[in-house]
Amino acid sequence: MIIVMKPGAEPRNIKAVLSFVEKNGLQTHLSRGEEVTIIGIVGDKSKLPTENLISFKDVDHVVPVTESYKLANKKFHPEPTAVKAGSTSVGPGTMTIMAGPCAVESEEQLMTIARAVKKSGASFLRGGAYKPRTSPYSFQGLEAEGLRYMQEAARETGLATICEVVSQEAIEAASKYVDMIQIGARNMQNFILLKEAGRSGMPVLLKRGLCATIDEWLNAAEYIIAEGNPNVVLCERGIRTFETATRNTLDLSAVPVLKEKTHLPVIVDPSHSTGAYKYVPPMAKAAVASGADGLMIEVHDNPSCALSDGPQSLTFENFDRLTGELAPFCELAGRPLIK
Amino acid sequence: MIIVMKPGAEPRNIKAVLSFVEKNGLQTHLSRGEEVTIIGIVGDKSKLPTENLISFKDVDHVVPVTESYKLANKKFHPEPTAVKAGSTSVGPGTMTIMAGPCAVESEEQLMTIARAVKKSGASFLRGGAYKPRTSPYSFQGLEAEGLRYMQEAARETGLATICEVVSQEAIEAASKYVDMIQIGARNMQNFILLKEAGRSGMPVLLKRGLCATIDEWLNAAEYIIAEGNPNVVLCERGIRTFETATRNTLDLSAVPVLKEKTHLPVIVDPSHSTGAYKYVPPMAKAAVASGADGLMIEVHDNPSCALSDGPQSLTFENFDRLTGELAPFCELAGRPLIK
Amino acid sequence: MIIVMKPGAEPRNIKAVLSFVEKNGLQTHLSRGEEVTIIGIVGDKSKLPTENLISFKDVDHVVPVTESYKLANKKFHPEPTAVKAGSTSVGPGTMTIMAGPCAVESEEQLMTIARAVKKSGASFLRGGAYKPRTSPYSFQGLEAEGLRYMQEAARETGLATICEVVSQEAIEAASKYVDMIQIGARNMQNFILLKEAGRSGMPVLLKRGLCATIDEWLNAAEYIIAEGNPNVVLCERGIRTFETATRNTLDLSAVPVLKEKTHLPVIVDPSHSTGAYKYVPPMAKAAVASGADGLMIEVHDNPSCALSDGPQSLTFENFDRLTGELAPFCELAGRPLIK
Amino acid sequence: MIIVMKPGAEPRNIKAVLSFVEKNGLQTHLSRGEEVTIIGIVGDKSKLPTENLISFKDVDHVVPVTESYKLANKKFHPEPTAVKAGSTSVGPGTMTIMAGPCAVESEEQLMTIARAVKKSGASFLRGGAYKPRTSPYSFQGLEAEGLRYMQEAARETGLATICEVVSQEAIEAASKYVDMIQIGARNMQNFILLKEAGRSGMPVLLKRGLCATIDEWLNAAEYIIAEGNPNVVLCERGIRTFETATRNTLDLSAVPVLKEKTHLPVIVDPSHSTGAYKYVPPMAKAAVASGADGLMIEVHDNPSCALSDGPQSLTFENFDRLTGELAPFCELAGRPLIK
Repeated sequence: MIIVMKPGAEPRNIKAVLSFVEKNGLQTHLSRGEEVTIIGIVGDKSKLPTENLISFKDVDHVVPVTESYKLANKKFHPEPTAVKAGSTSVGPGTMTIMAGPCAVESEEQLMTIARAVKKSGASFLRGGAYKPRTSPYSFQGLEAEGLRYMQEAARETGLATICEVVSQEAIEAASKYVDMIQIGARNMQNFILLKEAGRSGMPVLLKRGLCATIDEWLNAAEYIIAEGNPNVVLCERGIRTFETATRNTLDLSAVPVLKEKTHLPVIVDPSHSTGAYKYVPPMAKAAVASGADGLMIEVHDNPSCALSDGPQSLTFENFDRLTGELAPFCELAGRPLIK
Repeated sequence: MIIVMKPGAEPRNIKAVLSFVEKNGLQTHLSRGEEVTIIGIVGDKSKLPTENLISFKDVDHVVPVTESYKLANKKFHPEPTAVKAGSTSVGPGTMTIMAGPCAVESEEQLMTIARAVKKSGASFLRGGAYKPRTSPYSFQGLEAEGLRYMQEAARETGLATICEVVSQEAIEAASKYVDMIQIGARNMQNFILLKEAGRSGMPVLLKRGLCATIDEWLNAAEYIIAEGNPNVVLCERGIRTFETATRNTLDLSAVPVLKEKTHLPVIVDPSHSTGAYKYVPPMAKAAVASGADGLMIEVHDNPSCALSDGPQSLTFENFDRLTGELAPFCELAGRPLIK
Repeated sequence: MIIVMKPGAEPRNIKAVLSFVEKNGLQTHLSRGEEVTIIGIVGDKSKLPTENLISFKDVDHVVPVTESYKLANKKFHPEPTAVKAGSTSVGPGTMTIMAGPCAVESEEQLMTIARAVKKSGASFLRGGAYKPRTSPYSFQGLEAEGLRYMQEAARETGLATICEVVSQEAIEAASKYVDMIQIGARNMQNFILLKEAGRSGMPVLLKRGLCATIDEWLNAAEYIIAEGNPNVVLCERGIRTFETATRNTLDLSAVPVLKEKTHLPVIVDPSHSTGAYKYVPPMAKAAVASGADGLMIEVHDNPSCALSDGPQSLTFENFDRLTGELAPFCELAGRPLIK
Repeated sequence: MIIVMKPGAEPRNIKAVLSFVEKNGLQTHLSRGEEVTIIGIVGDKSKLPTENLISFKDVDHVVPVTESYKLANKKFHPEPTAVKAGSTSVGPGTMTIMAGPCAVESEEQLMTIARAVKKSGASFLRGGAYKPRTSPYSFQGLEAEGLRYMQEAARETGLATICEVVSQEAIEAASKYVDMIQIGARNMQNFILLKEAGRSGMPVLLKRGLCATIDEWLNAAEYIIAEGNPNVVLCERGIRTFETATRNTLDLSAVPVLKEKTHLPVIVDPSHSTGAYKYVPPMAKAAVASGADGLMIEVHDNPSCALSDGPQSLTFENFDRLTGELAPFCELAGRPLIK
């Protein structure tokens, strides 16, 4: 942490800052320049409410120099993490394809989709049983019933399964029926839910919030890991910007940034980010090329009739063509895709 | 809802859209232009998954023309709502000043602050007992103990009280001790929490999410009201933009926009939005001038030592000066401030 | 400038940075912490390409601590600047109302508008003769002819005049006919135009770019002042965000931020930022309350027929009512409005 | 264009809108719904100031349904365009690699870089002679001298050359010495410069503005083409968002969106968008995978000493490794890279 004093800061005001910091058991380093004076602070910052230093007289601004997340930080855990779920694993050397409908609509529908995506190379079946919807009047999901269908589909196909959770009850139900739980973009800073996901011990896919910085996202992952659960996968799904040609703006640069900052696996969702099925194939390839550990893609047997997010769903035919086209990209990434 | 077909759309594709819509019990109006053909849809849209229409062949885009929120919509409820809490009320003809510390730190501290803000003209005491913090290692609040201190402070001063809630348990606890509950920015689309707040019947202050559109915000309010609880107050607290000179960008234009779209009261938080105590007075005045029903302002007995958000807290002296300066602005707004 | 080294930075890499900086004639201050090592740099940063320091081995990041603008910086010029134009002046103690049509359409129209805004309390007539339009097929302005009409209107009414310029030719023409030139949002970083505006010696109103930070904006002002022309007025006109309920998001917090960072006058344009005439009055009042030195407001004799930006223009009646309502706010700001 | 009336719009107000539109020679189609009434407008919209329709009584909002750009629009020009420059061409079936320093610093330096990038597979040499810099105190470029060095480098290596232009003078100078001119992000809506670039007949690389929507970008291209110059290449270079981990946010989804909306070639600049050399290789591969026609990459003989943008420049070694790694991605895209 660095404190930058205002030009012409009075000596007694500089001294007041130094005393406050040192009284809290931290060390200070003073650099007096012609224009500005800088105070470096070294030690355990958890001991003092550092952000308040800005309230001291003649303090111009305060600059943090270390990240607040530790367990998710690659600096302290340089080896990449592999997260196991069902009979598969997400992380180094593998290309994970999660595919399925936005919302589970019926047992028959889910089974049909499960068989199709399995055949085309997916290793995970995704499907929403608890749907967070902008409007209270939109379809909200089949809840526990949907989870049971997921389990059935897993039994028949051997796919691992993943479902979004929105509450403690949903986590409890999901832990009985599926292999991995997902925390959605809107709940990325629902800290109560993060802690409960941590305590559940379940593998967790943590989607990036619509306007979350990478730093906040890694702090959200830290909430889960701090409860003793290191099984966290990050999922980039687009951020909110001024551009409206796509539903959100897929921030693919986040992939190499995360690869530098954290040891956790990173997957990319080109369906929710673009909001349009025709943009899914190019962005899926780009995600693999950028270094992602996997993809989450919406597939539906009849997109025109989907109860949720139809416009961004691939048909079986389109999904099969996509995985075929993806294979050489996965090969180049050292993550072979087995169809 | 309007469907815009692509230039040169084939007649059979246009017909397919018309059939699909009419089969779902809605009416269509066809306008054939030289460049494009447009289909207007009239009727109860809840009957068909309208967003999927984009998946039909030759459909270019789909344009919604009515808002999805109804109960929060001024078009259907033209009279402004007054929300009662404790012995006071938020809404037309009144200027509500909510003031207090970001986090409740101790009983003595809270009592000192409560007395000071009461003397300076506040009608509500605010104070966080459950703190959603970006890092799991930051101070997380006194929880139920903090709520009891709030109740004590209310008893002595006669102030109404408001506390943030982050879970079902927190809502239950808060409903015993305080007069209004607050749903914070990070939980604005935590739909489970919104529903629980709705069922509690408690007055709810709903803060705008960091990247929530006004439309999404009103849909979040709709979740609460749809549970039979019309006592919702909206609170603008800044949105996330590229600008870093202030912590967030206070979107004051949202006040007149909301006054046009909804009957719910609107208050403004200049403390969290700017993140700096020195910007609070000008933005508080601007908020009153823009038509807000109230203000939420952080006040602390010793900002340099606050356990949370010290840099944006006003001292007692600064807060008292501010309410003095605000009085004539409140007068101009037809909302007299009684000190 | 501060250089933060990576954890476990090798001594020789730290030394390489120190040598490079010192060889360029600057001083270094080293702070070794348990987690990180920090190097403070003091001296004339123009001597070394400081941003490249990030390329050195084991450097984690580089933090600038002083602003790059000097002439626009309040730290070095604490007294507020008053900018003279025609027989009036923009700055401390005055409330400047600039009003008029988005585009000059005809001599008669301009004269009618000039008389009306003068009567309602405006001190400047605004009117666009060179219009930067998103589409090449939109009305582009009357150019020099429009400028002459402005001069005519000034002669008759005594109003000062302001026109946007988009090129060297436009600056030359404008300097003959009007009292102040305006550089629009889209040209805020057209550095050639900024330099030419600087060399012209004309008073310049510099609008904020749609996605310009306050820091970039002040650097743009620095370009003008560095050419020997200190007559710069800043104009906040909304920034681009995800919110679409208003055309742009008026960043009123920029007013107190600028009042802290610069000595230049600041005016606010509630017309272009909101894009809707009905939001202009509340935001105009809020701007005055936030500490602005003035307002720029679009007024048109017949908004439904305006060739540009009709939806945000006030009628004469609405403008007159607004200035009446603004008067007590101006009084409170110590900037009386004389009608 | 569609006009949505307010609920309960009065018949005479609906009639007023219909009359106004029809009087301007356009056709109307009326759809009366239970909640809202909609008016579709068909015909030549250039005949009426359509945006002003919002000012009519009982009009709720106005929705445009066709794009304002025509010459850049794929709907009217379905075949992809190839833009010729020097002895090469940008567009279908080719992968264009533009490489070189951010700023031309000396003849010797430029020649060294030109030879290196040629050897590694580049077909264009890029180099800035006119530098738009945020601060007036930063290095501003060698201007015409730099252009002559570019010409020299082209003669020796056979590379095509591209230089940014910032003024009419720069366009004239550049047209003598280089093969393609570039309009930078900050000048994307400098309409005077766009028109001059159009009149010059030179091939133009048009970078996307920092906060330009894709629609505005295509309208900017329209300005150039409307002057009779169809030789426009678009370059995505990152947009401004709240995320600060990268300098800008590379919007790769813009590539497939543009491929759908326009016939113009699209290249991607992973250097300026990320601002960090280590993120350039993954984003370069992702850009190729997303369907881009080419890349613009900064390469410098000694990034630590570059006078501009050193942190994002690749060394010769890193650039050579990158083009080697890119080759199979180019092969997959049907755009072989010849080294």
